[in-house]
Amino acid sequence: AINGQRLWDSLMEMAKIGATPKGGVCRLALTDLDKQGRDLFVQWAKDAGCSIGIDRMGNVFARRSGRDDSLAPVVTGSHADSQPTGGRFDGIYGVLGGLEVIRTLNDHGVETDRPIEVVIWTNEEGSRFAPAMVASGVFAGVFSLDYGLSRADVDGKTMGEELQRIGYAGDLPMGKPIHAAFELHIEQGPILENEGITIGVVTAAQGQRWYEVVLTGQESHAGPTPMPSRRDALLGAARCIDLVNRIGLAHAPLACATVGMVQVHPNSRNVIPGRVFFTVDIRHPDDAVLAQMDREVRDGIAKIASELKLETTKLEQIFYYAPVPFDAACVDSVREGAKRFGYSHRDIVSGAGHDACYLAKVAPTAMVFVPCIGGISHNEIEDATPEWIEAGANVLLHAMLGRASR
Amino acid sequence: AINGQRLWDSLMEMAKIGATPKGGVCRLALTDLDKQGRDLFVQWAKDAGCSIGIDRMGNVFARRSGRDDSLAPVVTGSHADSQPTGGRFDGIYGVLGGLEVIRTLNDHGVETDRPIEVVIWTNEEGSRFAPAMVASGVFAGVFSLDYGLSRADVDGKTMGEELQRIGYAGDLPMGKPIHAAFELHIEQGPILENEGITIGVVTAAQGQRWYEVVLTGQESHAGPTPMPSRRDALLGAARCIDLVNRIGLAHAPLACATVGMVQVHPNSRNVIPGRVFFTVDIRHPDDAVLAQMDREVRDGIAKIASELKLETTKLEQIFYYAPVPFDAACVDSVREGAKRFGYSHRDIVSGAGHDACYLAKVAPTAMVFVPCIGGISHNEIEDATPEWIEAGANVLLHAMLGRASR
Ligand SMILES: NC(=O)NCCC(=O)O
Ligand SMILES: NC(=O)NCCC(=O)O
Repeated sequence: AINGQRLWDSLMEMAKIGATPKGGVCRLALTDLDKQGRDLFVQWAKDAGCSIGIDRMGNVFARRSGRDDSLAPVVTGSHADSQPTGGRFDGIYGVLGGLEVIRTLNDHGVETDRPIEVVIWTNEEGSRFAPAMVASGVFAGVFSLDYGLSRADVDGKTMGEELQRIGYAGDLPMGKPIHAAFELHIEQGPILENEGITIGVVTAAQGQRWYEVVLTGQESHAGPTPMPSRRDALLGAARCIDLVNRIGLAHAPLACATVGMVQVHPNSRNVIPGRVFFTVDIRHPDDAVLAQMDREVRDGIAKIASELKLETTKLEQIFYYAPVPFDAACVDSVREGAKRFGYSHRDIVSGAGHDACYLAKVAPTAMVFVPCIGGISHNEIEDATPEWIEAGANVLLHAMLGRASR
Repeated sequence: AINGQRLWDSLMEMAKIGATPKGGVCRLALTDLDKQGRDLFVQWAKDAGCSIGIDRMGNVFARRSGRDDSLAPVVTGSHADSQPTGGRFDGIYGVLGGLEVIRTLNDHGVETDRPIEVVIWTNEEGSRFAPAMVASGVFAGVFSLDYGLSRADVDGKTMGEELQRIGYAGDLPMGKPIHAAFELHIEQGPILENEGITIGVVTAAQGQRWYEVVLTGQESHAGPTPMPSRRDALLGAARCIDLVNRIGLAHAPLACATVGMVQVHPNSRNVIPGRVFFTVDIRHPDDAVLAQMDREVRDGIAKIASELKLETTKLEQIFYYAPVPFDAACVDSVREGAKRFGYSHRDIVSGAGHDACYLAKVAPTAMVFVPCIGGISHNEIEDATPEWIEAGANVLLHAMLGRASR
């Protein structure tokens, strides 16, 4: 069994980097704070006897040798970046949970046949740089390296530049054989807590599509411009936000549909907005329903634009993956782990995207979920109990050990 | 008659300061560019023999002495600041039109009994610092000096600080006797151009109310958070934007209702927005209807917030003035000027607010409008013909001369 107190202390120590007033974390990808978080992990991993490798997307691999170092490793890990107003567990729990597995193996002098690696995947959140999971996506061959390095933030800074700047532009090539991969994460939704269950055995992740939309009308004075002659891009965006919500509700209970980001131009109180950029995020565990939602979004936006005499200057799907089934054997390893420790558990589908979704394309992969309080994540008040945190890492330890022999 | 070419050339020279790619101007209040524009005007006014005074709100008074300098002056002027994507005429036409009046009097060696003053009123647009017309408002006693100097932009910089920084924090006290005031401006709406009329004799300005609204919900993950349990502040804001538009249409043709500015928090693609700030601007020439619209805005926002389980963290009216009737004698002077030059003219109500609206509280005041192309203003493509520009300044000259004797 792992050392729950040590894991908790490490999480709280890491949470100081980018700590926010309301108890959360702001550690956006490839900022100075992200670098500090990476540096701390690298130090801890070295202290635990690991060697460190960094690939060209800045993914950090902390490796504990196996008896036969030529064998493909068993991999775990998650991300160290956060949302602008994120929590202390989203991502970093999967990284430090992996480190705790290594520390525990060290405590007990356990050798494994295969090497074990704990990975920080760069820019999982997709908040500073869209889309999400871009670096695990490049690792898995879903995106090209050029695509990954050229993702830009709102100021036009690219991931490639920022990796150089913070000293995490590594030289390892992208991708390598992985024997099995596991990712430990908080659920980020309400199901486990509502049902009083400690471990989510993640069998699949729902599919998602992200869009960027720009509606263009005509900037004009808010006073002397008669209502009927206006071409108000913000009115159009507002109706699209309502549309997206209605599409999500129409496909409830499983669908999600969200507009999270809006930029209004020129954003002046007495100017009818001439241009509005906004994002759309739709999700469903059934790819056919997701495709139906896609059509509804496209048709609905076109209709709104035409009614308001706006141009749809951009309506681009910038991110898509079909629902991801995890590997049956890896899922079993997770379930066995929960049983062995006597934790209550249930199968669950992930509502969020995770680096494991892309790893699943190149290696047998599964995930371990633990509850989070109120089902709330992507919020500074995100929280979890020390018992859940300990339980998840125990299941991870067991699942990894089960796959670490020859 | 004034020199139309000289006036046009001065306008085009000034338009280089803050020129934008699409042929407009970005000269936000109290920026370095605003300072450059002011400096150029001050130089031109000095070259025309004027003395310069600056009051504590940074209003710049260029004075041409009269035969009896103890008499209250006849005043004209407007503003030199612009919208973020503004045009080459909005405001500055009234300033340089006034300067052209003085240059014309100089050309012909005309002495007036009363001094004549051309004023730049600080921060008329209300874009960088809300509300609009704040410095003419302090001059007219509508706002206190403390209130004016403490208006802050989105970065928290105050007008007081920025006036100091650009060297336009003057020491003249606020307010003084004015014999009569005229403001020359483009219409910023479509009426004159549609009817093929050159001069608008402005009899009144419609009333307006501005609001700041903050809706608060709960930030949460866009993936695993079920639709029914969401408290999406952006969905609430979107419905409010639609509401404001419907209120404007319901009171058409005279009403206007606009949301021009939105700030989403945390503005991340995969986070359900927890907090949204937006502004509302409603206008009507009848104060009773404006009050009715105010009730509809307040009730509508409260209803939307309650339906979506959002908190209305802020709903504050930050700016209000009742419809402004201009002075009958000054209006007559404008009408006489148009007649004298044989310009087509009609009475018109201003849809925009102008510094003249506040001056009207402390002095007999009226305005001269000329058309603008397509009725478009607060847009880089704002435009006007040299003929209109010349005609408006001729009417201003005549109206001012008519009031400049003892
Ligand atoms: N786990 C997580 O928050 N991932 C971000 C990508 C997504 O929005 O699903
Ligand atoms: N003239 C003008 O654009 N004034 C700005 C204040 C308003 O929005 O009415």
